[in-house]
Amino acid sequence: MAPSPKQRLFIDVGRKEFARNGYGASSIRTIAQEAGVSLSALYYHYKNKQDLLLAILLDGVDTYDAVCDAELADAGDDPVAQLRAFVRGNVKFRTQYPLQGQLIATEVRNLEPDGARQYDERRRAGRKRMRDIIDEGVRQGLFTTKYPDDCRRSILAMVSAIANWYEPAGPDTPDEIAERYADMAMDLLCPSGTNTAPRDGRE
Amino acid sequence: MAPSPKQRLFIDVGRKEFARNGYGASSIRTIAQEAGVSLSALYYHYKNKQDLLLAILLDGVDTYDAVCDAELADAGDDPVAQLRAFVRGNVKFRTQYPLQGQLIATEVRNLEPDGARQYDERRRAGRKRMRDIIDEGVRQGLFTTKYPDDCRRSILAMVSAIANWYEPAGPDTPDEIAERYADMAMDLLCPSGTNTAPRDGRE
Repeated sequence: MAPSPKQRLFIDVGRKEFARNGYGASSIRTIAQEAGVSLSALYYHYKNKQDLLLAILLDGVDTYDAVCDAELADAGDDPVAQLRAFVRGNVKFRTQYPLQGQLIATEVRNLEPDGARQYDERRRAGRKRMRDIIDEGVRQGLFTTKYPDDCRRSILAMVSAIANWYEPAGPDTPDEIAERYADMAMDLLCPSGTNTAPRDGRE
Repeated sequence: MAPSPKQRLFIDVGRKEFARNGYGASSIRTIAQEAGVSLSALYYHYKNKQDLLLAILLDGVDTYDAVCDAELADAGDDPVAQLRAFVRGNVKFRTQYPLQGQLIATEVRNLEPDGARQYDERRRAGRKRMRDIIDEGVRQGLFTTKYPDDCRRSILAMVSAIANWYEPAGPDTPDEIAERYADMAMDLLCPSGTNTAPRDGRE
């Protein structure tokens, strides 16, 4: 269910607070103050800091899914076009929603078991989508890698790391970065074949 | 300067505590208790929690450098052999020292300006080493990528992410993973050339 305007405010303020201080050192009282509401008004929507953290992380996944969906909508059935669209979506998420990405990277470990289960379920669906694209590309002979699982993990890691150096001021636009990383994802999935032989006699 | 045996104990206990709770929610008092010393004994070596965090992170970088140095020692002058050795070192660090890697990923942002400066200086040296290997490989025509900077960042991100799924119980050994990731690093640096043309007419 999409957050109400009030919940959206708490999620946005809480995200900034958690990103600044980390979850452990953040205070729900400060978040209420910065949102300009009473503590009890915040508690009406989120029963504690943990509940707000879960809402913020699930909202981050919603954003991620929406950005990827928008790119995939035009990709048709071709696994190569889908893979490139998926990489573009990931690059756009990392460049346009850096705080959402940061919280996913650093605060998921602070979820308690119930929230961690809900969060994992949502994330699993996203990972499955990429796995399906790669599996289909391998099945059709379009992706020739011997390591499809490692490629999937590596492509996700590569695009996630863009957040560490990306500058909105440039010189690279998100679209340029997205094309480069789509090329590199394809380089992993379709290796030239000259580099996969052991160079030192080991198998 | 290498830590004394006492400092080594505080670093090891503190690392576990920070990894478990995050820096913000960790208590220097608990760390002293778990190390079996008085708070003042700990303060004799580290003047506060921040000082201990910096020591733990620099110790992590020392470990990282030592593991990479050990691999590079036998690589000789060939940039390809050096690149593969560097990837192997990174894989070994991520698989054998997961907590060190985790703290580098999550707690560097909690360094105050002075510590952040010291830490950055140390890390910059490590990044420069990989940059030098790639630059030399490009110069010699061994690495044909059009995107050496993105390759460098992507290779580091790929190997860092191994910590997210690696299981000491197997089935993959660190050596097997290292060879796969060295292959994939080479696939990025030496793309097959068929995948870098725009597929949809865009430049």
